[in-house]
Order: sequence, then structure tokens, then C-alpha cells
Amino acid sequence: MKRIAFLLIAVAAVVGLVAFTPPAPGHADGEAAPIFGVTIPPGYRDWKLISVAHEAGNNNDIRAILGNDTAIKAYREKKLPFPDGTIIARLAWRYVPSEENNKVFGRDQSFVAGPPINVQFMVKDSKRYAATGGWGFAQFKDGVPAENAVLAPCFPCHVPGKAGDFVFTHYAP
Amino acid sequence: MKRIAFLLIAVAAVVGLVAFTPPAPGHADGEAAPIFGVTIPPGYRDWKLISVAHEAGNNNDIRAILGNDTAIKAYREKKLPFPDGTIIARLAWRYVPSEENNKVFGRDQSFVAGPPINVQFMVKDSKRYAATGGWGFAQFKDGVPAENAVLAPCFPCHVPGKAGDFVFTHYAP
Repeated sequence: MKRIAFLLIAVAAVVGLVAFTPPAPGHADGEAAPIFGVTIPPGYRDWKLISVAHEAGNNNDIRAILGNDTAIKAYREKKLPFPDGTIIARLAWRYVPSEENNKVFGRDQSFVAGPPINVQFMVKDSKRYAATGGWGFAQFKDGVPAENAVLAPCFPCHVPGKAGDFVFTHYAP
Repeated sequence: MKRIAFLLIAVAAVVGLVAFTPPAPGHADGEAAPIFGVTIPPGYRDWKLISVAHEAGNNNDIRAILGNDTAIKAYREKKLPFPDGTIIARLAWRYVPSEENNKVFGRDQSFVAGPPINVQFMVKDSKRYAATGGWGFAQFKDGVPAENAVLAPCFPCHVPGKAGDFVFTHYAP
């Protein structure tokens, strides 16, 4: 039932966005992600750290979650909902054992960031993305945006995190 | 034999540092770590990300490695050895499953940063820390520096990383 509800929200979100979102602007920094029209924010790799995580299973990644200054300020002040202009970046790398580190430790215990998988962004714009909790979602692999089918489930999956303004990541002190 | 060699280097390093390092300066930001006299660098939590890792075993942590601007510049330019002034910060948090995230994924796969464990720093000063490859080492838990016994093995453990100027962490693109 929960899955069906999610699916319905997903479909509604896609239909809503296709109907009401202005065409994605062209952007010097690269192609805009479909549906939400999000481009890669310049300089995101230099943003401050929110937290880190490991997703096992099919993801098999280790990840860093970074935020622009608006995001970091809101996190540190425990301000919810996140203000417009907030951008959260999730950088994922392949989760790989480090033989070099394991040798030093004398046992298999070290896992590090391997090749990059992709980068995802959540962009807060309460008016533009009103149909999806105020958030626009994007994913890029080597600068190439993911297709609609990839982005459509983003918001439905984030709905259980509504109490935290649809954001799962907590700030790591 | 390798372990004995490490131990000898450790003892030599400690003896050398006790003999030749000037007294640790007092510092407004907190107590200096023993042996190397390293204090907590102001604003390190805002530094840019170098990479992330998970250490299983006794460590049981998930960690972010951040660098000051000198460190990041050297990493990005693949410049070795790291120039004086480089500081690398290793922030470790308890490696904990996220029930909140697992519910969303529908399976146990998500591990996040729990309570902070400690913060370590490597500070490059090729003259001051000549006896330990040019690096001073420090560890702080809740602002309190670790004792000599904790810091003495730092350099010997980093010796296998000599080709990378005693630094194990690679930059995650």
C-alpha cells in the first residue's frame, strides 16, 4: 500500500512538474537535469561537510554530504524548514577495500572511496518546487544529468523524512 | 621483525622529539597535544573534503578527511611532499546503522555517522618535525588532547606511506 502511495505521489509529482515547471534554463556550467531543471552548482566540491555515510546493498557506496553556506547555516542553527537557496550535495564513490591501509592495520578493516559513482543535489525553492515539498532533485554522472525515470522517485522516497523537511542526513558534529 | 623496527622508530621518534622539540606553546583555542605541541586549528570543521572512509574492526568508525587550503591545493596539484603549513584533519564518528534510512530502503543497508569519537591532525613543518618525516601528529577528544602513549605510534604507523609523504588518504574526485 505504502509503495502504491509512493508511486502515485511520484506520478503526480512528475505530471505536476512537467505541467508547471518553466523550461530548464540553459547553463554555462552544463546540461540541466530534467524535470527539475537543476544544473551543477559551481564550486560544490568545495562546500562544507554535513556528514558521511555508507550505503551497502545495491548502492555499495561511501558518500559525503556537503552543503552550500545556506545549508550549513540552517543545519547548525537547527533551522527547519531549510530556507530557499539551500543546496545539499551528495557525492558517492564506489565502496572499496584499501589494501594499502589493511597492510598497515594488519587486518582487513579499511574501506575507502573508490571511483566516483555520481553526484546528487537537492535544491530548495519553495515556489518553483512546491509540488515536491519545495525541493528540486538532480543527479549527474560525469557531468551528464540523469533522466526523468531516475529523478521521479526522488521525492516520493524522501516523503518519510517530512519531519526533517524531507532531508535524511543529520549534521555530524 | 617489522613490528620491532616500528617500535624502534617509535622510541627514537619520542626520544628525539622530547629532546629537540621546543615546549608546546600555550594556545587560546585549547590545550596543545603532547610531544608535537599541536593545538586544534581554528575553523577546521569548515575545511574542504579530501575523502571519506570506514574503518571496521576495533575502530568501528566512519570518517571524513578534511584539509586546510594548503593541503587541498597540494592534493589537487598532486604535489609531493606536502608543503609546510599543510594540515590534514581526520574526523571520526561511531559507525552506526540508520534505522530511519533502512526503513526507506526497505532493508538494512545504511550506515551513518553516530556520536563523534575524536579528531586527529597531521601538521606539516619540515623543520620542527624533522624527526617524524616533517609531520606533527595530534588527537583530541572533546577538545582534550591525547597523551604521549597515544601519539607515539602515529609516525611509525605512517612510515609505510612514505611514498605518499606519509599520508594514506587519497583525494576523492
